Amino acid sequence: MSLDYQVPLRDMRFVIDEWIDAPAWWRSVPAWEDVDGAMAQQVLEEAARFVTERIAPLNSVGDLEGCRFEGGEVAMPAGFREAYADFVAAGWPTLALDTVAGGQGLPQLLEVALQEMLAAANHAWLMSPGLTHGATACLMAHGSAALKRDWLPKIASGEWLTTMCLTEPQAGSDLALLRARATPDAVHEAWRIDGSKIFITGGDHDLTANVVHLVLARLPDAPPGTKGLSLFVVPKWTLGANGEHVRNGVHCEGIEKKMGLKASPTCSMRFEQALGWLVGEPHRGLASMFVMMNAARLQVAMQGVGHAQLAWQRAHAYAHERTQMRAVSAPAHHEGEPGRAAPIAFHPAMRRILLDLRASVEGERAIGYWIGYWLDVAARHPDAQERQAAGQLASLLTPVAKAFFTANGFAAASSALQVFGGYGYIHEYGMEQTVRDCRVAMLYEGTNEIQAIDLLVRKVLGDSGGALRALLAHVTAEAARCTAAGDPALTGAGARLAALVADVQRITGEIAQGSADDRELPYRVADDYLALVGWLLLAFAWARTLRIALNAPADDPFYAEKRTTACYFFAYPLAAFDHRLQLIEVGCRVPLPHV
Amino acid sequence: MSLDYQVPLRDMRFVIDEWIDAPAWWRSVPAWEDVDGAMAQQVLEEAARFVTERIAPLNSVGDLEGCRFEGGEVAMPAGFREAYADFVAAGWPTLALDTVAGGQGLPQLLEVALQEMLAAANHAWLMSPGLTHGATACLMAHGSAALKRDWLPKIASGEWLTTMCLTEPQAGSDLALLRARATPDAVHEAWRIDGSKIFITGGDHDLTANVVHLVLARLPDAPPGTKGLSLFVVPKWTLGANGEHVRNGVHCEGIEKKMGLKASPTCSMRFEQALGWLVGEPHRGLASMFVMMNAARLQVAMQGVGHAQLAWQRAHAYAHERTQMRAVSAPAHHEGEPGRAAPIAFHPAMRRILLDLRASVEGERAIGYWIGYWLDVAARHPDAQERQAAGQLASLLTPVAKAFFTANGFAAASSALQVFGGYGYIHEYGMEQTVRDCRVAMLYEGTNEIQAIDLLVRKVLGDSGGALRALLAHVTAEAARCTAAGDPALTGAGARLAALVADVQRITGEIAQGSADDRELPYRVADDYLALVGWLLLAFAWARTLRIALNAPADDPFYAEKRTTACYFFAYPLAAFDHRLQLIEVGCRVPLPHV
Repeated sequence: MSLDYQVPLRDMRFVIDEWIDAPAWWRSVPAWEDVDGAMAQQVLEEAARFVTERIAPLNSVGDLEGCRFEGGEVAMPAGFREAYADFVAAGWPTLALDTVAGGQGLPQLLEVALQEMLAAANHAWLMSPGLTHGATACLMAHGSAALKRDWLPKIASGEWLTTMCLTEPQAGSDLALLRARATPDAVHEAWRIDGSKIFITGGDHDLTANVVHLVLARLPDAPPGTKGLSLFVVPKWTLGANGEHVRNGVHCEGIEKKMGLKASPTCSMRFEQALGWLVGEPHRGLASMFVMMNAARLQVAMQGVGHAQLAWQRAHAYAHERTQMRAVSAPAHHEGEPGRAAPIAFHPAMRRILLDLRASVEGERAIGYWIGYWLDVAARHPDAQERQAAGQLASLLTPVAKAFFTANGFAAASSALQVFGGYGYIHEYGMEQTVRDCRVAMLYEGTNEIQAIDLLVRKVLGDSGGALRALLAHVTAEAARCTAAGDPALTGAGARLAALVADVQRITGEIAQGSADDRELPYRVADDYLALVGWLLLAFAWARTLRIALNAPADDPFYAEKRTTACYFFAYPLAAFDHRLQLIEVGCRVPLPHV
Repeated sequence: MSLDYQVPLRDMRFVIDEWIDAPAWWRSVPAWEDVDGAMAQQVLEEAARFVTERIAPLNSVGDLEGCRFEGGEVAMPAGFREAYADFVAAGWPTLALDTVAGGQGLPQLLEVALQEMLAAANHAWLMSPGLTHGATACLMAHGSAALKRDWLPKIASGEWLTTMCLTEPQAGSDLALLRARATPDAVHEAWRIDGSKIFITGGDHDLTANVVHLVLARLPDAPPGTKGLSLFVVPKWTLGANGEHVRNGVHCEGIEKKMGLKASPTCSMRFEQALGWLVGEPHRGLASMFVMMNAARLQVAMQGVGHAQLAWQRAHAYAHERTQMRAVSAPAHHEGEPGRAAPIAFHPAMRRILLDLRASVEGERAIGYWIGYWLDVAARHPDAQERQAAGQLASLLTPVAKAFFTANGFAAASSALQVFGGYGYIHEYGMEQTVRDCRVAMLYEGTNEIQAIDLLVRKVLGDSGGALRALLAHVTAEAARCTAAGDPALTGAGARLAALVADVQRITGEIAQGSADDRELPYRVADDYLALVGWLLLAFAWARTLRIALNAPADDPFYAEKRTTACYFFAYPLAAFDHRLQLIEVGCRVPLPHV
């Protein structure tokens, strides 16, 4: 039995080549004439090798050793610095970065797969380079020529790591309450930043020679609220007039003792007359920052998938190794001795857990990569309207994936822990660390409740349902393909999928209608609505998977397992859709008391 | 804002005096002529004072400091030893112990409330005396006169702490696989125990002068399986011929690094020619041990309630203190300034969480205490048939409470953590510790999956539904009282309750019928069935609560909040009953593949 993380390359290939059929789209993009399924596979194999050899082995030791805060600086656990240097040297940070910015220009879809691997292998380690892409995108979109010249290359390559400094003690989800301020510094043609920030991931560390902070603060003439926030580049070290390194007024004041992610320092930062440079327009910092946050939200969604994958494969391996109690039934091929203790994987309660885990993680992988695909379409399609539509679809799907996948990831980790019995509760088997590490993904980059409001209030109701209609059209098309195929299981799946679409349409209409007189209604049902869409997406994923698997060679076990899991999904876990629908119907009808 | 644990004395009094009306029953018990509602309240107030002043303050520091294993012995965190000495000196271990065994002979119902307080205040600390009652009951029921003379008084009083040594590396849920052995020692008219045990709570510590282990092992002539297990008293220190203390062959080999309960040592134990004394008949050790385990299961259930209580009150306090974002609505009495950030308790997503927590914990408290009441009836009722029926009811309810309350406790802790946002993830606010500590309760004393099988296969199907019928008769009687009361909300609750009973009856019949041809069926649906019964019990709890609250003075806020929460419960969370029912119906129809 190996509990080491194994990258699910076969399933990744299935999603990319068959479920999405990404290679057909890549062929239509001039810049990707070299990119095809084989090449993608090669990149993922290379990534898998790096991740399993260099990153995964540091997961448990990083948790045990943690970060040390000494003399105002943070020391990372043993091995982290070397692994990060190799990560940069191998060019992994620039995989999907545009070639004009010095990147390799590969599809975002592959970057999404890489993020899943890194999260599964070592979530805490991944936190350090977690902001690289967001900061790069932010500076590319909003940075001045000088900022791009001085900071972008080293940030994009990963040579310098970055942070996102939003939160202050009184301002978490509500950025309108931020107080950090910026005053002009005429001598340096820059700004001086003062204020305190908390929960700053990687606020200090010894992985890179410099740490570059992107800080939200208010100019002296700033209006109150979120429309008075400006964004600044504030490095730990600045360059002096003669090119010498000058320590900036950026101080780490301590690191948090957290539930998990022990190997990722969460810093309290104090900015004291720290030299900073404005990114984008004054008072428009939030718009610039949102470029970072949207990229980060899909990464967080893939952390949920990575954790669920690790949970699933560990629970599966353990359940087949560990023997306890006689089983009521055994698989057909099994020649057990009657009366002897059976692998716990034979026991129905364990099979329910294992099948739930598998249905969840493989369905989510398809949806997560599909979002990556739409980001590629949004960036590369020759037609502007197609680009816009793809961007809207990705933007609709991102909060669903962020909240639904991370909640499922936590549930998956806890379920897998349960499979291990008492062993799940001790550090050695790794499951308890996964539960602790993954819990944060439901909180950061916007709590899951914020995602639900973003989805329902902004992106569904605020858009008059336009983006939702586009999504439902894709699902309806899949339902039609399934019902047309002639296979009874597939026809059933297609009919169910079509019924789910009808339910979502109906309930969305009811919410929209009811909200006119009852402003609180959408906020009351938002979390259930997000989960409802999440279950719809999983049903979409499994219907298409079943359709593909039924056309595959009957004797290939990979597709046989897909068929089994798809049928299980439609029978058992999808009942959660009805539960969420029922709760939304209650929410439309029954006001919520104050408590 | 105080995040310190506050014992919910008002609600405890409500459950004891009104929901159960225990004082009416106490009056009928001759031994309890002094016991009434006022006296019970006094005991609970005293307990609350002790728990909040002496035990709760050690919770966070115990987690941070943990236990130390040095030189083969375990040192407990600072303050634990003194608090335990005071606990014993105040007589808390013997609260409900029979007066003939030196106890105070008070109702079990009060002991159940004490267990809830201790778990909420400091679960790790509670682990140390966690086996005292089980070991006492075991020795009282099965110990020889000599054993009772030599060991019982100091075990019952708490002067010596005890352990339960079942698990071995290859044998967790499956005790048939145990290998530890016992060989006769003619010189001492005793036995020599050899073997290794793992996951032994309190296997060593410095709280008491001696540690007495109750160990399952096999005699030389033992048959294989669970029918060959014998139970032994094996102390760390024995008494020599001249009364001197002799170190026994009992060795702690290390403590586990766990997810939580850092202040409770989980020991690997090695027994090497350790002197032991047989408890009860040879090969009948499991029956003796089960006396301990049943008592322990209700304690674990109350840990779930305690954790949920702590989660609920902390989340409630924090949500009213923390302000973020404008609210769509505010409570009627609130005079907020428009445009200012509101307490997050005003936001609907947070209210849903808070109301779910409250509905869950207060409903569970009623049911948990009700089980304690039935244990009292089983022990004290003059009529043997009533005693037996009460015992059966408690025995039916115990696995439901153990699994349902602990699963809800973990979910409650995680939901409360979510209310704290990023602060929930750091140690300081306590929520992450609660999540880590409470997770174990789903695993130990029989995993929650084992409880579900115990409930459905043994106690419902195995009993031809006799105990279930008795339970449903209680619920049906409550439903009839509610529908007869004339209030529309109460009539609705009564009708719903009656419908739930009908659903449970119908689905139990279907399971019984289907199981004849499909042996795996009950194992496939057992977990959902247990949850179904759990939701039925909560509905029972809230229907009766609503009935009582509607008869109470309209202007008493305590009862007004009960009415609000009851109506919320029937509208929102109870939808989970339908979800579980749907899953069971699927399970009756759809076989489960092997994976």
